[in-house]
Amino acid sequence: MLIKKALETPAAPVDGLKGVTIRWLWASADGAPTFALRLLEVEPGAATFRHAHPYEHEVYILSGRAVAHSETGEFELEAGSTALVMPNEIHQFINRGDEPLRFLCAIPVAPAAGGKNK
Amino acid sequence: MLIKKALETPAAPVDGLKGVTIRWLWASADGAPTFALRLLEVEPGAATFRHAHPYEHEVYILSGRAVAHSETGEFELEAGSTALVMPNEIHQFINRGDEPLRFLCAIPVAPAAGGKNK
Repeated sequence: MLIKKALETPAAPVDGLKGVTIRWLWASADGAPTFALRLLEVEPGAATFRHAHPYEHEVYILSGRAVAHSETGEFELEAGSTALVMPNEIHQFINRGDEPLRFLCAIPVAPAAGGKNK
Repeated sequence: MLIKKALETPAAPVDGLKGVTIRWLWASADGAPTFALRLLEVEPGAATFRHAHPYEHEVYILSGRAVAHSETGEFELEAGSTALVMPNEIHQFINRGDEPLRFLCAIPVAPAAGGKNK
């Protein structure tokens, strides 16, 4: 068993996104065979990409508030809200609140995601 | 995109475990292609199974405190701690605190887990 404290892991900027960082908690490099777990942090006024990809996201809001855009509607999320983004579904998470938004986002590792697991 | 509030989903007892419930937040039944996300709640004094299985767990502690036993040692976990349990590694999460322990646990869906994703 490998252990980390999530907020003590390095937070990397996300290319092309202002006010968003990502922490890769578990990934292929750690030996995770099937899926990866990341912690994203979105500053007030910032948002993740509005995009789609051929694999799912499973999201769990840890703190802050998010507005989630998707093809099935717009949703307001808060701590304890969880989302399943389907493969190829356009989606985006926006922080319209006044505190940082933190959420977990699990994705398949590269082999299960066609080599593109961003 | 599908949305839920985690604590509003049904909590089911776990056969053979006293003081432990599981909420299946996302699973094959929801259309999740690769992995499932569960929320486990462990009462003070209770523990999950001491067991192993041929697929990984990725765990994130939401609240409470846990002692994790594994083949690589014993670890104290608190909110924000995260764990990667490797395939076939014996592991157990114990609540030795005085408040409920809640953690997320992601696992491959049945096809990726040889049909056994408990």
